Amino acid sequence: MATDFVKNNEKYAKDQHKPNLPIPPSKKLLIVTCMDARIDTFASLGLEQGECHVVRNAGGCAQDAIRNIVISQRLLGTREIAVFHHTGCGMLTFTTDQLKDILRKDADDAAKAEVDKIGSFLEFKDLEESVKEDVKFLKNHPLVLKETKVSGWIFRVEDGKVVQVA
Amino acid sequence: MATDFVKNNEKYAKDQHKPNLPIPPSKKLLIVTCMDARIDTFASLGLEQGECHVVRNAGGCAQDAIRNIVISQRLLGTREIAVFHHTGCGMLTFTTDQLKDILRKDADDAAKAEVDKIGSFLEFKDLEESVKEDVKFLKNHPLVLKETKVSGWIFRVEDGKVVQVA
Repeated sequence: MATDFVKNNEKYAKDQHKPNLPIPPSKKLLIVTCMDARIDTFASLGLEQGECHVVRNAGGCAQDAIRNIVISQRLLGTREIAVFHHTGCGMLTFTTDQLKDILRKDADDAAKAEVDKIGSFLEFKDLEESVKEDVKFLKNHPLVLKETKVSGWIFRVEDGKVVQVA
Repeated sequence: MATDFVKNNEKYAKDQHKPNLPIPPSKKLLIVTCMDARIDTFASLGLEQGECHVVRNAGGCAQDAIRNIVISQRLLGTREIAVFHHTGCGMLTFTTDQLKDILRKDADDAAKAEVDKIGSFLEFKDLEESVKEDVKFLKNHPLVLKETKVSGWIFRVEDGKVVQVA
């Protein structure tokens, strides 16, 4: 292992974990953010255990989060979505075609078939625009509840600050 | 807003944020875990900013994480994946057909078309088995690098402890 989860977890379980919290997020909130290693969602937003769902994927892409949002809203009562993208995101640095070319190098037939199945890696070219597009996408999506509050944010890896842009 | 992100973020940005960390995760690690509100990934595993990618979705489903894993491995150098599912998961409590029925109630034509597009919500019936299946899925996936270390874990919401099961 790259890290000793069991050892690192002992102190947390003893001192920090809150048992017996209900499943539905107490703030009725769902956050979509990037998988980026520099983002500690709970710490950076001052969130507590039990307060909100956290969906993380490459980029913080709303399109890739619909399955999660439907489950969160219909089964667990969330009514607000905050989308975060961030400065210095890897998704600003490549195109789907470039990554497909990398994957096709020394790929066997099974791998090539999987590459062909991928429509897009959902990369983006303009950070602020990508947040605004995701907010619009969620506001117009037929399976997202009409009464949902949707906001869009940028997390700045340079100074750890958040800025609302939509 | 359900919570004041800007106010809550101020202290973090001032005291806790580490600027200028590189994009590639220093532990070459990617974690897949559930969006559940009771899971604070960084705190519960003693992780520091910059150490690992964190993918979160409903259930911590590996199938839903392939786009992210490919980007993480091919562009940002990760070589280890740890999959976490957890006790008391919402994904143990419903079936795709049940959720589709909920969605179809008072759905317009656009919503009905979206429901039809959904193959499965990736729910599961047996917690430990679901982790083992996800580990197997990743070890055999044509686009996951052959040299990847893959492990499977359960996070227990009752006491905050982690247990390796694969």
